[in-house]
Amino acid sequence: MKDIPYKIYLTEQEIPTSWYNMRADMKNKPAPLLHPGTLKPLTFEDMQPIFCDELIRQELDNDTQFIPIPEEVQSFYKMYRPSPLVHAVFLEKALGTPAHIFYKFEGNNTSGSHKLNSAIAQAYYAKKQGLKGVTTETGAGQWGTALSMACSYFGLDLKVFMVKVSYEQKPFRREVMRTYGASVTPSPSMDTAIGRKINEEHPGTTGSLGCAISEAVEVATSTPGYRYELGSVLNQVLLHQSIIGLETKTACDKYGIKPDIIIGCAGGGSNLGGLISPFMGEKLRGEADYRIIAVEPASCPSFTRGKYVYDFADTGKVCPMAKMYTLGNGFIPSANHAGGLRYHGMSSVLSQLYADGYMEAISVEQTSVFAAAEQFARVEGILPAPESSHAIRAAIDEALKCKETGEEKTIIFGLTGTGYFDLKAYEAYNDGTMTDYIPTDEDLAKGFATIPELNL
Amino acid sequence: MKDIPYKIYLTEQEIPTSWYNMRADMKNKPAPLLHPGTLKPLTFEDMQPIFCDELIRQELDNDTQFIPIPEEVQSFYKMYRPSPLVHAVFLEKALGTPAHIFYKFEGNNTSGSHKLNSAIAQAYYAKKQGLKGVTTETGAGQWGTALSMACSYFGLDLKVFMVKVSYEQKPFRREVMRTYGASVTPSPSMDTAIGRKINEEHPGTTGSLGCAISEAVEVATSTPGYRYELGSVLNQVLLHQSIIGLETKTACDKYGIKPDIIIGCAGGGSNLGGLISPFMGEKLRGEADYRIIAVEPASCPSFTRGKYVYDFADTGKVCPMAKMYTLGNGFIPSANHAGGLRYHGMSSVLSQLYADGYMEAISVEQTSVFAAAEQFARVEGILPAPESSHAIRAAIDEALKCKETGEEKTIIFGLTGTGYFDLKAYEAYNDGTMTDYIPTDEDLAKGFATIPELNL
Repeated sequence: MKDIPYKIYLTEQEIPTSWYNMRADMKNKPAPLLHPGTLKPLTFEDMQPIFCDELIRQELDNDTQFIPIPEEVQSFYKMYRPSPLVHAVFLEKALGTPAHIFYKFEGNNTSGSHKLNSAIAQAYYAKKQGLKGVTTETGAGQWGTALSMACSYFGLDLKVFMVKVSYEQKPFRREVMRTYGASVTPSPSMDTAIGRKINEEHPGTTGSLGCAISEAVEVATSTPGYRYELGSVLNQVLLHQSIIGLETKTACDKYGIKPDIIIGCAGGGSNLGGLISPFMGEKLRGEADYRIIAVEPASCPSFTRGKYVYDFADTGKVCPMAKMYTLGNGFIPSANHAGGLRYHGMSSVLSQLYADGYMEAISVEQTSVFAAAEQFARVEGILPAPESSHAIRAAIDEALKCKETGEEKTIIFGLTGTGYFDLKAYEAYNDGTMTDYIPTDEDLAKGFATIPELNL
Repeated sequence: MKDIPYKIYLTEQEIPTSWYNMRADMKNKPAPLLHPGTLKPLTFEDMQPIFCDELIRQELDNDTQFIPIPEEVQSFYKMYRPSPLVHAVFLEKALGTPAHIFYKFEGNNTSGSHKLNSAIAQAYYAKKQGLKGVTTETGAGQWGTALSMACSYFGLDLKVFMVKVSYEQKPFRREVMRTYGASVTPSPSMDTAIGRKINEEHPGTTGSLGCAISEAVEVATSTPGYRYELGSVLNQVLLHQSIIGLETKTACDKYGIKPDIIIGCAGGGSNLGGLISPFMGEKLRGEADYRIIAVEPASCPSFTRGKYVYDFADTGKVCPMAKMYTLGNGFIPSANHAGGLRYHGMSSVLSQLYADGYMEAISVEQTSVFAAAEQFARVEGILPAPESSHAIRAAIDEALKCKETGEEKTIIFGLTGTGYFDLKAYEAYNDGTMTDYIPTDEDLAKGFATIPELNL
């Protein structure tokens, strides 16, 4: 691989101008979202109070293979895209592996992750619909930051409900959001009915993502001119994130790189779904084969230990129900899990593909994830996000297997972001106080008990 | 400017393979460093206990125009270079200016700034000399982070003395350094004679950069196999940082961009000196003319209100003396100055060029700097470091002048880094509690009183 630059940057002309919709090539389509009251598939009209019109169309569209990226979004993409496909030569050397390792690095923007790819699309459609603003929730703050940048660009108001414990313990991302003009409210708040209810029932609670979602949806649906936007899990988000995979594929084709293995971390699935999309498309159409591996934390193992059933998307149960691999909407990973990817469910698209055997999933423990993160940081010069480091762990393990067998496999993984706002977790790792957590079957049973029993 | 990409990335083959030494083209050479005891110019032998041999040669070399970049350093540069020259089309549009604005962005690496350019060179020469390790000081932590990455790459030990107040209030950069394997000691410490003396004389002191320098030098000179390394001010550092300007010039030549104005922030001068070097070279050789503007904080105005005299480089007075624009080695900017660039002196090279009329200098107040930072972040998508934002302020002001006059000037400024570890300062700005500070003549007089009276 002598003629491949260390970092492959496509030209601006080579940035894809359409998103790729994997669903169009799936024989078994992902199961539709259900109305929590009627248990019938959600219609366009059902979703209108919550989501922007055009985003609903994208959510429901299982047929159109390519959807043009609006010019304004293309223009914004040029601010931080194309992102580099990096040949990890320093890592290969450190491992002494014959494998060829590449990573698609999405962290070179102020949101620090790939989340901006969907945020700008969602903000654009809100603006185009003439909305005044949007609401969302955020945990550690990557999605909230991304959406604040996008809303600032289009002059949209943004109300972020930030999980209270993060609001207090991670004030820096909050300040980035404020710098971009967003209002940030710790959740549960006293501003919403659901927030007041949760505060009353659980005095002193530090909040959860599921609760923040419920508050953001309540405000969106009760405030004229507002809608709700979500940064992962949904079909529309995977569609927007296909830009990651399309750029990767273009770069591969340009330089004759043919991956044997494609690896991505999986929380709600937006990064993984985006990265693999054109490769999965080839696989679905029978044109090529790839090993595709989803990597999730052992502490929140929805693919590897979850159930493939309908469940609520949020703990407040105000959101639609989705068929997905889920640990139960009441499942909350142990507080000593610092590595992100804490969502109880998984994208319906990826869930269907996994159920149909198109991809594998593994789970990894967090101290081994941080060991991989440190090793990577030292040789590749980028301090990775804990989430991304799950993929690094798996990529290193695959490369070490190649070292044993002598195989020259080509491995591509997604480096979704940087860890600059996750130094508390690195501190715990550096201090040797970080521990691992694997839920017992009993722990999981408690989560499963929160899954509604449906008669479909 | 239609055919210019939004972000100009040179190919890896176009990355310069030699550094450019501005001193070779200066008629009036920068004044030599003086031995604090003898007041005679420092010799190679005088410096040997402190600095690596090859770095001393570079420090003293006023004649060689181009110095080859060692292959190992070139290889590391490929990890994060070339850095993009960005056409600030979104900023131009927001300002409604006919000016063409470009910025050279050095923040896309984990050290978060241009400091890595010199850190890797300094670590390389230490390794080549067979040293066991190096010492340094750091304030907010950009330089310490950069050197920790560089030392980790070459397997060198690194002892960082971090100003105590930063060590306690900015734990995140400390954790990055630890992740790269550096030991980080709060300064003043009880590990050095000078540290113990300062702690005794000023119980409860939170430290200063000058004090941390003194401690780092003491450890380097008293520990076998160690030397001291410094991230700014020195001639050698400006030499390494010329990579910024050389890449910028190559990109300009490739796309037919001819800057009228080049703007850089100036603390010790390493970024400014690097950015302007090839342009200044043309100016020194009479081949072209450019307006070159140094931007410093009004709270630490060494160029605009300092004296051009010999002064100590550190408050502990263990370092050599340099002829430079200085506010006095005892000058400490007000604690409410959050914007970096706090060093009392200025690079001897830049000082001589400024004295000879080759460049201008202005000072700006910090609330206006953060206003520029916020405006920039919102339209260009990058949250800038407070230091870099001094240059943004000046670039915006020049672009607004063009708007008044209708002139289509081309402005290039250096965006030295990102502000991800400076959110406390952004918080103060967002909260409206940030204030400005301009030292009175009386304040300055106190600083000037610490400049030694020499009889040269």
